[in-house]
Amino acid sequence: MYVLISLHRRGHRHLRHVKDLSTTAHSQLHVPLNHPTFLVWASNTSLGKTLVSTGLAASSLLNPIPKPRKFLYLKPIQTGFPSDSDSSSVFHKLSRLSLLRRHNLPHFSLFSSNHILKASFPAANSALGQEISETPHSGMRDLGYYEEAKPEGDVGGGAASQLVCKTLYAWREAVSPHLAAERESGVVEDAAVLELLQKCLRFELGGGGEKGKETEIFCVVETAGGVASPGPSGSLQCDLYRPFRLPGILVGDGRLGGISGTISAYESLKLRGYDIAAVVFEDHGLVNEMPLLSYLRNRVPVLVLPPVPKDLSNDLMEWFDESRGVFDSLKEEMLSAYSKRMMRLQDMPKKAGEIFWWPFTQHQLVPEEAVTVIDSRHGENFAVFKAQNNEFITQQFDACASWWTQGPDTTLQTELARDMGYAAARFGHVMFPENVYEPALECAELLLEGVGKGWASRTFFSDNGSTAIEIALKMAFRKFSYDHGILSDVHKDNTASQRVELMVLALQGSYHGDTLGAMEAQAPSSYTGFLQQPWYTGRGLFLDPPTVYMCNGVWKLSLPEGLHLEISKLENKAFSSRDEIFHKIRDKSDLARIYSSYISEQLSQYSGSGGFYHIGALIMEPVILGAGGMHMIDPLFQRVLVNECRSKKIPVIFDEVFTGFWRLGRETAAELLGCVPDIACFAKLMTGGIIPLAATLATNAIFNSFIGESKLKALLHGHSYSGHAMGCTAAVKSIKWFKDPQTNLNITDEGRSLRELWDEDVVQQISSHPAVERVVALGTLFALELRAEGSNAGYASQYASSLLQNLRQDGIYTRPLGNVIYLMCGPCTSPEICSQLLVKLYKRLEDFDQFHQIREENSQSYGG
Amino acid sequence: MYVLISLHRRGHRHLRHVKDLSTTAHSQLHVPLNHPTFLVWASNTSLGKTLVSTGLAASSLLNPIPKPRKFLYLKPIQTGFPSDSDSSSVFHKLSRLSLLRRHNLPHFSLFSSNHILKASFPAANSALGQEISETPHSGMRDLGYYEEAKPEGDVGGGAASQLVCKTLYAWREAVSPHLAAERESGVVEDAAVLELLQKCLRFELGGGGEKGKETEIFCVVETAGGVASPGPSGSLQCDLYRPFRLPGILVGDGRLGGISGTISAYESLKLRGYDIAAVVFEDHGLVNEMPLLSYLRNRVPVLVLPPVPKDLSNDLMEWFDESRGVFDSLKEEMLSAYSKRMMRLQDMPKKAGEIFWWPFTQHQLVPEEAVTVIDSRHGENFAVFKAQNNEFITQQFDACASWWTQGPDTTLQTELARDMGYAAARFGHVMFPENVYEPALECAELLLEGVGKGWASRTFFSDNGSTAIEIALKMAFRKFSYDHGILSDVHKDNTASQRVELMVLALQGSYHGDTLGAMEAQAPSSYTGFLQQPWYTGRGLFLDPPTVYMCNGVWKLSLPEGLHLEISKLENKAFSSRDEIFHKIRDKSDLARIYSSYISEQLSQYSGSGGFYHIGALIMEPVILGAGGMHMIDPLFQRVLVNECRSKKIPVIFDEVFTGFWRLGRETAAELLGCVPDIACFAKLMTGGIIPLAATLATNAIFNSFIGESKLKALLHGHSYSGHAMGCTAAVKSIKWFKDPQTNLNITDEGRSLRELWDEDVVQQISSHPAVERVVALGTLFALELRAEGSNAGYASQYASSLLQNLRQDGIYTRPLGNVIYLMCGPCTSPEICSQLLVKLYKRLEDFDQFHQIREENSQSYGG
Repeated sequence: MYVLISLHRRGHRHLRHVKDLSTTAHSQLHVPLNHPTFLVWASNTSLGKTLVSTGLAASSLLNPIPKPRKFLYLKPIQTGFPSDSDSSSVFHKLSRLSLLRRHNLPHFSLFSSNHILKASFPAANSALGQEISETPHSGMRDLGYYEEAKPEGDVGGGAASQLVCKTLYAWREAVSPHLAAERESGVVEDAAVLELLQKCLRFELGGGGEKGKETEIFCVVETAGGVASPGPSGSLQCDLYRPFRLPGILVGDGRLGGISGTISAYESLKLRGYDIAAVVFEDHGLVNEMPLLSYLRNRVPVLVLPPVPKDLSNDLMEWFDESRGVFDSLKEEMLSAYSKRMMRLQDMPKKAGEIFWWPFTQHQLVPEEAVTVIDSRHGENFAVFKAQNNEFITQQFDACASWWTQGPDTTLQTELARDMGYAAARFGHVMFPENVYEPALECAELLLEGVGKGWASRTFFSDNGSTAIEIALKMAFRKFSYDHGILSDVHKDNTASQRVELMVLALQGSYHGDTLGAMEAQAPSSYTGFLQQPWYTGRGLFLDPPTVYMCNGVWKLSLPEGLHLEISKLENKAFSSRDEIFHKIRDKSDLARIYSSYISEQLSQYSGSGGFYHIGALIMEPVILGAGGMHMIDPLFQRVLVNECRSKKIPVIFDEVFTGFWRLGRETAAELLGCVPDIACFAKLMTGGIIPLAATLATNAIFNSFIGESKLKALLHGHSYSGHAMGCTAAVKSIKWFKDPQTNLNITDEGRSLRELWDEDVVQQISSHPAVERVVALGTLFALELRAEGSNAGYASQYASSLLQNLRQDGIYTRPLGNVIYLMCGPCTSPEICSQLLVKLYKRLEDFDQFHQIREENSQSYGG
Repeated sequence: MYVLISLHRRGHRHLRHVKDLSTTAHSQLHVPLNHPTFLVWASNTSLGKTLVSTGLAASSLLNPIPKPRKFLYLKPIQTGFPSDSDSSSVFHKLSRLSLLRRHNLPHFSLFSSNHILKASFPAANSALGQEISETPHSGMRDLGYYEEAKPEGDVGGGAASQLVCKTLYAWREAVSPHLAAERESGVVEDAAVLELLQKCLRFELGGGGEKGKETEIFCVVETAGGVASPGPSGSLQCDLYRPFRLPGILVGDGRLGGISGTISAYESLKLRGYDIAAVVFEDHGLVNEMPLLSYLRNRVPVLVLPPVPKDLSNDLMEWFDESRGVFDSLKEEMLSAYSKRMMRLQDMPKKAGEIFWWPFTQHQLVPEEAVTVIDSRHGENFAVFKAQNNEFITQQFDACASWWTQGPDTTLQTELARDMGYAAARFGHVMFPENVYEPALECAELLLEGVGKGWASRTFFSDNGSTAIEIALKMAFRKFSYDHGILSDVHKDNTASQRVELMVLALQGSYHGDTLGAMEAQAPSSYTGFLQQPWYTGRGLFLDPPTVYMCNGVWKLSLPEGLHLEISKLENKAFSSRDEIFHKIRDKSDLARIYSSYISEQLSQYSGSGGFYHIGALIMEPVILGAGGMHMIDPLFQRVLVNECRSKKIPVIFDEVFTGFWRLGRETAAELLGCVPDIACFAKLMTGGIIPLAATLATNAIFNSFIGESKLKALLHGHSYSGHAMGCTAAVKSIKWFKDPQTNLNITDEGRSLRELWDEDVVQQISSHPAVERVVALGTLFALELRAEGSNAGYASQYASSLLQNLRQDGIYTRPLGNVIYLMCGPCTSPEICSQLLVKLYKRLEDFDQFHQIREENSQSYGG
C-alpha cells in the first residue's frame, strides 16, 4: 500500500552502540508473598503498636508447636534512638516471656536476634557512646548494632525457633521522622527505604530450601507514629509503603475521642488501597468496639486488649499473659486473611478464563498461565502476582497505558482517589439535563478554555470515545444539512431524505470506535466484515493518506499509490527533523498544491446539490491513526484536507479520543497540526485514566443548528450518566494536573509542550535495527513496526509474541497491534523511565532478531 | 394505536377520599445560606475547638466595625454538662474579653446570651441542683437555661452587637454522646438534631427585615469530639450533619502524631463530601504546618495558634490577645470562602446555559431561572440551591432517579464513597483483556450468580446500555448466522453477505439506546427521523404489542389493532389483580394461542434459508418499555414471543438496562416474565447509580460461536475502560447491598422480591382521577399518563410542565416523557417515603385539573 519514495539520508548521525546507553535501572519490585507479612499501623502515636507486635511474636513462637517457627519483626523507621528502640523492646520482652513460659513448652528452644542496620550520625554516636564529632556528617551510616540470645547449651542448631528483629533506619530525636532526618542531616529517600525493606523480606522469607516453605514464618513490619505520619523523606507513611501494598492491622485508640481517630485512620488506609485484616486496641472502659464494629459492619474483626498497667516495671509480663487469648485470636485472623488472599490469587486466572468474555480477545489463544493477575496499580505500574516457585508480587510498567487511557503518576493517583471519594460522597451521580453542578460546570469550563480554546463553545458529555463520535456525526450532519438546504427539502417532502445519503470523508486505516455509527465512518478492515458486524456498509469516501515515519534514523515521507506518480518529480522526500514535518512553511510547497488538487478532485464527485451522495463531514484522527497501527499522517496533508472541507462548508470533526490531553506532546493534536475543527471528541486520558467519560466539543454555529421551538429539533441523544460527577471531578483534577508545571515536571515551552520523553539516540538506533520496519516517537508514544510479511503482518499476527513475553519478564507490560508494538507513558512520566524502557526494548529486539534468524536458518536446513 | 377493549370492573374497591391518606411529611430541608455558617470540626477531642470558636467570635465582634454585628454560636451536642458547657465558655470568655478590649472600641455595645435548650434528665437535674428522682425519666427535657449580659445602662437597643450562644442538647456524662445518651436514657434521633439545628439557624439567620441581610451575621456550629465521633444516635457526626453539608474548618493537632490525625480527619470529611475552608491548630513546636501544607498543596490555608498556656487562670485572656491576628486571618479566610461559594452558586445557571449542551434538551425552552443548581446529593435527595429572597439550600426527592440510575440510600452512598476511594487508590484503572483483577472477577461472579443465574456463563463489560446492546446484537447475529448456515456461505463466497440482511424482531415503542446500532433495533419514532439520525433505516420487524395498565382502579388489557378483531370474542379483558397478569396459568389460555399464531404468522415472512431478510435476533425490554413511555407489555405476549423465537433458533436478547436490579421489584424483569434469554444487557442501577458500567451476559452457546484459531473470529469490540475497577467495585457493593435483607429492609419473599412500595389505595385513586389516562405501579416505578390530545400528547409535549413545577415546589424533582410522568425510587426507599410522594402528586393533580378546566373554560369564553 505504501511506496517508499526515498532512502536519501540527511543529517544521519553516527549510530552509537547500544552499550553506551545503559542507564541504571532500579531493581525490580519483588515482594515475597510466600509467608504472611503484615504492616502494623496505628491511628496515633503511643497506642501500643510494639506491644501488639510483641504479643503476636509470643503467640507465634511461645505456644506449643509441632516444629520450629520463625517470627520476623521489622521496624523500618525508628526515631528517638537509642533510648527508644522498638526492635530492642520486642527482642527483650520476648526473651523474658520465653523464659517465663518455657516450662509449658516441651523441647522449646529459641534463637533471638536484634539488629540495627543504619542510623544517622547523631543516633549512631549516641548508640556507640561516641562523642559527637565537630564536623557534622550527613547521610546515614551502617551501624551494625547486633545482639542475640541463644538457647542455653545450644549454638544455634536447626531445631530452634527464631525471632529476628531488625531496625532498618534510626534517628536520635524523638520527633516525626521527616523532622529528625532533616535535623540530623540524614534524609533517606522512599526508594531506599523500600529497597532495604524488600531486601530484608527476601532474605528472611524467600531464601533457604525448595520454595522456602519448610519453616513457617510470620512477619510484621511496624510503622512509626500514625498512618499518615511522614517518613524520613516527608512522604506520608501510608504513601511510602504503598508500592508493596502489604495487608495490615490497625492499632486503634480506646480512649475518649478514639473512635473518631480509629475510623479516620482506617479511612486513610482504604484511601490508599490497603486491606486491613483486623483492628485491635487497648480497653479504656469506653466500649469503643461497639461503634467501630457497627461502622465496619462486622466485616473486619475488632479485638480489645486489657488495659495496660501504668506501672511498666516487670516489663508487662502479667499483661502479656492476660492478653494471650486476644493475641492468639488476632494471629488467627491474620493467618486466615493471608490464606484467603493467597487462595484467591492462585485461583483467579482459571476463574477468569471461565467466566470473562474479554474484548478483542480470542479466548482460545489465552491459556491459563498467560493470564496476568493484577493485584493493584501504582502510578504507571501494575503490581502483578506471580505464582511460580515462591509466590511474589512484581511490577510491570503499563506500557500500553491500559488502552491509552493512563496518565496518573503516584501522587496524582492518591489525589484522584481522595477526589473520587469526595465526589461520590458529595454527588454520587445527579442527572445532567437542565441542571448544573460544580464538577460538570468546572469540567466544561476547563475543556473550553483548554482543548477547545479559540473555537469551541459547547460541551456535550457522553461515556466513551465511540459515543462521542456518534454524537459528533449527528452534529455535523445536521449542520451540513442546514447549510446545504437538505433539511428544508426534507421538511417539505418527507421522502426527500430517501433521496439523500450523507457520507463522511475519512482516512484509510482510521478507527473511530466500536459502535455501528462510529464503524460506518471507517474504511473496510478486519473489524468491519460480516463476521464482525453484519450491518456495516462503510458510509464514506476513504482517502489513502501519505504517512511519515522514521527509518534508519531519518524521518521520511511515504505516499499512497494515487499520489505517487504525480509526486515523484519532487526532490525532497526526507526531513531533517521531526519539527520540519510540522512546520507551517510547508503550506507553500509544491506538495501542498498537489495534495490540494488531489483532495479537490476526490471531493468533486460528491459536491453539488443535485446528487444522491453528499460528503456531510470530515472525520479524522489528527496526526496519528491509533488503532489502525500507529501511523503518523503527514500533517500537511491533514491541514490541506481541513482547508478544502472548510471551503466547501463540510463540518470538520477531530477524533482526539486517543491524541488528546498531551498524548502526542501537546494538549491537543490540533495544536500540532496548527488548525482547528468544528467538532472534536475527547475521552481516554481526559479523566487522567481512572474512569470513563467523554466529551464532544462544538462551535456555536454547530450548536445553533439544533435550536428551535420544538424539543424534536434538539439533539435527542444522551446517556444515563451524562456528565457524571465523578468523571467530571477526575477530569478537572487531571486536566489541571497535566498542564501545571508544579505538578507535571515535563511541561515546557511556556506550558505548551511536553519535553522530549524518548531518548533521540536510542530512537534512532531502534529505527536502524534490521528487525524494525519503521518507528514513530511523539509525545508519550513510541511505536515500531516489526518487519514482517504474509500472515506475520497485520492485526491478527502473533509474530511479536516472543518479544512481548520477554518484555514482560523485564517488567514491561505491552500489548501489540499485530506486528506493531508500542510503548506509551503518561504525560508526567520522567524521560529517565522512558529511556529505560527503550533500552530494554532494544536489547530484546536483538534477541528477537536472533530468534527469528535461527528459526529461519533451521527452516532452511530442515524445512522444505 | 391502543384499543381499550373493556371497562368492566372487577374487585373495584370503594375509593376513599384522598384526605384519609395524609401522612406526616417531614418538614422540608431549608438551610439558610444568607450568612456565613461553618461547622467547626476537630481531629480529636480536646484540641481547642471552643477556643477557636471564641477567637472567631472576638474577631467578629470585638474589632472596630462600622455597624453592629451578630455572632451565632451553636453547640448541638454537649456531654459532661453542666460542668462542661462550651456555649457557656464562649459566652463567659467573650464577655471578659469585651470588657478588656472595650477601651479600643468606640460606641461599642454588646448584648450576649447563652441558652441551653434541651438536656437529659440527669444533666437537667444536675444543672438545676435538683436531686435525681427515684423513677428514672427517659428522653430529653426542655431545660430553658438562659443567661445574658447587657451593656451597662442599655436595655438591648437596636444599636448593640450581639453574641448568641446556644447548646441544643446536653448530657451529663463526659463520654461520647452515644454512650451518654444511652446511659442517661436520652437518645435523640438524627432527624431531631437536624430539625432543631435548622430551626435555630432559620430563626437566627433568616428572620428580620428584607432579605435578612441588614445585620452582618457570622455563625459557627461546633461539633463534639473528633470528626467521626458518634452523635447521640450512634451515627458518626460527619454523617449526622451531612444533609446540610455546611462548609467547615478543621481544628488540627499540633502534637507529636498530630500530622497523621489531622490528615486522616481531613480525609474523613472529604469522604463525606464536605468542603474545608481552613485548618488551624495549636503550636507545639513541631512545625506540623509544613507537612500539612505540603499534603494540602497549599490549596487550603493552615493557620497556627500560639501555645495555650498550661495555667488556665485568667481565662486565657493574654492568649486571646496574642492569637488575635491568627483569628482575624482565619475569619477572613472563612468569609472569603463563603463569598466565593455564593458567587459561584449564583452564577452557575447562567454559565451552564452558555456552555453546556444538555442531552435531550431544547435549550431554547430552558430559561436561566428554570435551571436547577444541585449543590449535592444525599441518598435519594438532591440538595438544591435557591437564590430567591434569602438564599438557601432545599431538598428535592430525585423522582426520576437521575435517568433511572439511582439506588443508593444515605448509608450505601457513604460506603460507596469509601469504596470508590479505595478502588481508585488500589487500581485506578487497569486494562481488562487477558488480565484479571479482583473487582472485575467478583463483579462477573455476582452477575452470573445473580441476574444471570440459571442461564448465563459469560460476562462482557462495556460502558453504557447502548454499547451493551450493540454488543448483544453482534453476539446474537453471529450465533444466528452459524446456526442457520449463513456464515459458511460467507466464507465460501465473500459476496454472500450482500445477499443476506439480518434484522431484529422488536416491539413498537421500545428503545434500546442512542447509538446507531441500538437505534436500528427500534421502530421509527421521534428519535429516528432524518433530522436526528440521517443513517437510520430501522432494521427490524416491529410488532405492536398488547399492553396492560390500571385505570379507575382496575388492571386492564389493551390490544393492538392487528389482534383486536380476532380477540374481541374473548370475555375476560380485565384482571382481578396485578399478580394475575403475571400468572403462568395464562399460558394455557386462548389468548396465549392467539398470540402464538399471530407471532408465528409475522415471523413466517422472514423464515426459510433462501430469503434476503432474516430475523437474526429477538430484542426486547422485558415487562416495561421505558423511554417509549412506561408502557407495560402483557407478559404473556412476551413469554410467547420468547418461545416462538427459541423454537426457530433465533437468539433472544433481554434489554434489562432499565428493568434490571430490582427496578421492577425483582432482581431482573426476566423473573417477572418467568423465562430466560440467551443474552441480556445491564447498566444504570448496576453500580448502585454512581458511575457508568454496563454488562452483556451470554450463554456458553453464544460465546462458543466466537471461538476459533484466529483472533479475527473473536468479538472485536471493546471500550477503553472495559471492566474498569471502580465501576466493578461499585457494582459489587451495590448488587450485594440491594439483595441483603440486613441492608435493604424492602427485601421480602425469601430474598426474591421487594415489598410493595406504592400504597395501593392511593395508586387506585390516582388511576381514577379524571386527568389520568392510565397508571402503572411496579417495583420502584410509578407512572401515569395524563389524558391529552393532539400536540399535548407525545414526547415533545409540554403539557405537564405546570404540574412538574408544582411538584418541585413540594420537593419532588421529576422530568416527564412528554405527557407521561413518573415517580421512581431506589430499591431501598421506604414505602412511607413513596406514599408521601404519591399523596403530594395526587394533590397536585387536583390543581392541575382545575388549571386545565379553567383554561379550557377561558378559551371557550374568549377564544375562537
